[in-house]
Amino acid sequence: MLTLQDINEAYYRINSFIHNTPILTNTSLNQLTGSELYFKCENFQKTGSFKIRGAMNTVLQLSESQLERGLVTASSGNHGAAISMAATICRSKVKVIMPKNTPKIKIDNVKRNNGEIIWCDPNQASRDYILESVLDDTNGVLVHPYNDERVMAGQGTIAKELLENVPELDIIITPVSGGGLLSGTICAIKSINKNIQVFGAEPLEADDTYRSLIAGKIQSNETTDTICDGLRAQVGTLPFPIINKLVDDIITLTEQEIISALKMIMERMKIIVEPSCSITLAAVLKRKDLFLGKKVGLILTGGNIDLVNVGNLFDIKDFTNNE
Amino acid sequence: MLTLQDINEAYYRINSFIHNTPILTNTSLNQLTGSELYFKCENFQKTGSFKIRGAMNTVLQLSESQLERGLVTASSGNHGAAISMAATICRSKVKVIMPKNTPKIKIDNVKRNNGEIIWCDPNQASRDYILESVLDDTNGVLVHPYNDERVMAGQGTIAKELLENVPELDIIITPVSGGGLLSGTICAIKSINKNIQVFGAEPLEADDTYRSLIAGKIQSNETTDTICDGLRAQVGTLPFPIINKLVDDIITLTEQEIISALKMIMERMKIIVEPSCSITLAAVLKRKDLFLGKKVGLILTGGNIDLVNVGNLFDIKDFTNNE
Repeated sequence: MLTLQDINEAYYRINSFIHNTPILTNTSLNQLTGSELYFKCENFQKTGSFKIRGAMNTVLQLSESQLERGLVTASSGNHGAAISMAATICRSKVKVIMPKNTPKIKIDNVKRNNGEIIWCDPNQASRDYILESVLDDTNGVLVHPYNDERVMAGQGTIAKELLENVPELDIIITPVSGGGLLSGTICAIKSINKNIQVFGAEPLEADDTYRSLIAGKIQSNETTDTICDGLRAQVGTLPFPIINKLVDDIITLTEQEIISALKMIMERMKIIVEPSCSITLAAVLKRKDLFLGKKVGLILTGGNIDLVNVGNLFDIKDFTNNE
Repeated sequence: MLTLQDINEAYYRINSFIHNTPILTNTSLNQLTGSELYFKCENFQKTGSFKIRGAMNTVLQLSESQLERGLVTASSGNHGAAISMAATICRSKVKVIMPKNTPKIKIDNVKRNNGEIIWCDPNQASRDYILESVLDDTNGVLVHPYNDERVMAGQGTIAKELLENVPELDIIITPVSGGGLLSGTICAIKSINKNIQVFGAEPLEADDTYRSLIAGKIQSNETTDTICDGLRAQVGTLPFPIINKLVDDIITLTEQEIISALKMIMERMKIIVEPSCSITLAAVLKRKDLFLGKKVGLILTGGNIDLVNVGNLFDIKDFTNNE
């Protein structure tokens, strides 16, 4: 099982390849929520998302012969770009299985980092099927986007950095999809200070983790009709037991709540983030009772959003006025 | 005439009311331009733009009786919001003459800071006429957006901060509209180190400063059909002599060049800026010969852009591929 030592080792391994990203605060959002919010800005990270942490930590541990065989992964985009960059740094190559409905900016990001894209249909079955075929055909090395302790340890380094800068945090909240980030965060935080609460934020339209916790075993999503293109995966078998044992709660959010929070972050903080992480602010706004008067760390996981679609998003939706 | 001492005094006067904004760098934009770019991020400033500097420096110097009379200004939005915040802090009130085509986010920004909006047509004549009428009717105190040495001194504090953090700069480039920022920057920079070059970037569609320098006297714009809603004013009588004497050059940019740079900043730096300041990056991209191998400071003046329009902007235009 993942330990704090794994995360510390990951940190020293990847440190020179990543940014120690800034932590931003915003007076008007503090006033709006009644909390002290600390936004850990992984949207400013290399490749535009936190995924480079787990990717680098994994690829740096591969053998020469594994690197020579080439890598294979399945990704909604950010992990694909991250593995592509990591492979380039380590002189390997990568094939990325990507859903056909991936935003253009994420496709371009994989290509720019020399990844080769292989398309699948936008569902877990097609993703798994094509991944298996490619692995069989190429004898490539699988680097799973989240169901891998090396990846989970890499993602756990964000919480470590956040806590080193803001040691008096009361709560950390992360998005949850496959569970790599949430499980890494839980492991880092609860090992350092078990009094700090860790929450996950998940789209109601892909709430498999929320339902899995209730059922006590992993549930799947029949559909994943959410704007959060980074949060459509199903929770992995390695992250799930950690989440099941130690997470304080999962908060589920509607599409409108997620978009409303996205607009707030962009308009007030003047930074570009994905809906897949504005969901953390949406959770704080929805459950003010949990966060009131608390120092809350929010992990903004990425900024790879197609700007051509931003306008339509904000135009069509009818926002709840939170002010 | 404006002096470095005015700027230093402005800095100590406004210091506790403003952010010392971060200076960002970006590897991929450095590679693209062949320069070392330092972006001074006034889009993260209070009210979302640098205008709070000049506004605070002016309003803090008004007498009790002037504050009681109330303030009047004309603004495309950012100065209006800044004066509104400054007036609120100093317990005064303000009427803001704004063009009818002002973006919604700038209108909201003025209202949120308790400014009262009075509409004018989007041209200099209407703006001047209504401003005079309101001043006559109300006996209010004019706080001009740029033609005022207190405002110019406040705007000059950006260059001072930038140079304190990056003393080895070779060049600074700012947008130019009324000339408050450019003249303040010139005064700060040339007093500290006259070897540092200062450039202005101006839309071809509102290139009055460029033409004024050629003519040797102030020229007006017949039309100002530019997306840069913050750069439509005519250069002022107080900034012009400073610019005329000491600016190294004005670089003019097409609408497409400005939008292309806007997209680059948003996609690669993950920050939200206005076209009125992406114009500085557009200038570096257009005139690579001037900036190659140099350390260049770019002042990103504001981030108040209507996100509902961003998509259309990037969708419709045919971008030059600079890579």
